[in-house]
Amino acid sequence: MDKITLGPMPYMSVMPTLLVGANVKGKPNYMTAAWATVACMVPPMVCVAINKARYTAKGIEENKTFSLNVPSANHVVETDHCGLVSGAQVDKSGVFRSFYGRLNTAPLAEECPVNIECRLFTSVDCGSHLLYVGEVVEIHADRACVTDGKLDIAKISPIVYAQSAYFGVGEHVGKAFSAGTKYRKK
Amino acid sequence: MDKITLGPMPYMSVMPTLLVGANVKGKPNYMTAAWATVACMVPPMVCVAINKARYTAKGIEENKTFSLNVPSANHVVETDHCGLVSGAQVDKSGVFRSFYGRLNTAPLAEECPVNIECRLFTSVDCGSHLLYVGEVVEIHADRACVTDGKLDIAKISPIVYAQSAYFGVGEHVGKAFSAGTKYRKK
Repeated sequence: MDKITLGPMPYMSVMPTLLVGANVKGKPNYMTAAWATVACMVPPMVCVAINKARYTAKGIEENKTFSLNVPSANHVVETDHCGLVSGAQVDKSGVFRSFYGRLNTAPLAEECPVNIECRLFTSVDCGSHLLYVGEVVEIHADRACVTDGKLDIAKISPIVYAQSAYFGVGEHVGKAFSAGTKYRKK
Repeated sequence: MDKITLGPMPYMSVMPTLLVGANVKGKPNYMTAAWATVACMVPPMVCVAINKARYTAKGIEENKTFSLNVPSANHVVETDHCGLVSGAQVDKSGVFRSFYGRLNTAPLAEECPVNIECRLFTSVDCGSHLLYVGEVVEIHADRACVTDGKLDIAKISPIVYAQSAYFGVGEHVGKAFSAGTKYRKK
């Protein structure tokens, strides 16, 4: 390969498309986000990077709770809308129907097949963004998206985010902790 | 939707499949990881969650540098292999050819079309895992995967990780900061 340098950039190959739910001034608000992942197995934690200036950041700071909601590909318009407008200017509480789980201040989007309900564990001040780390207190899921007790990606139809565009999940290319058994030293 | 609860779990809808590069005892080592994302825009940062017991964690602690390498779908066997065996038992320095960029201790995998070179910014002790946050000091890319100065996902062919399996990137379902303009209040 002919390698070239592109300079430092906030690059990631593929990301999840999510809606961060937070109550701000007592009202549910949803913000589109993709800079999120799992942070810990025991206890289960997730993290999400949010620009300090965001309306959602105010809600997380206020309540120390938030949610990560997984929209399906058929909700791409509503999902992208939540990234185009700020809760400071537009009331987004009606874009999705909200319900609450174990916490009272982490709104969960009914139309999303999976909802990750979180209690703030800590946050890291990285510069323009705060990296919020939350302990997962409950996973809520659409019963129709669960197969043999497990979340089923084919039924959830999550949205992959990459290079400013939304994609579906593509073809199966291998099983983890299995495909590598075919490896032979060169 | 008929929502049910599944209990707290370290769940994320879709994740990037990556190889974390670190020098351990002076030798390059690569570990498969998917719990990673962007942590900040300015300065550019990424983060990755790694089990404390991992050999890779020793290298990051030792050198305060690491890399995130993006393998293509055609390297799924080598990629999964690096998640099946530990550097503590098996020398993985020959699975990929290594090169170095701006830092002297963050090995970069030549065969991966994109390499994210990082200097450790901080780490968060979450329990079983440490969440390493690194400042991106350089992005290295295969010239053949760059179109009009930008990284091209169709050429990179990254691997999506979800429910213990590897997938390709699927069909385009919308443009970010654009699809939402079609939203009309219900």
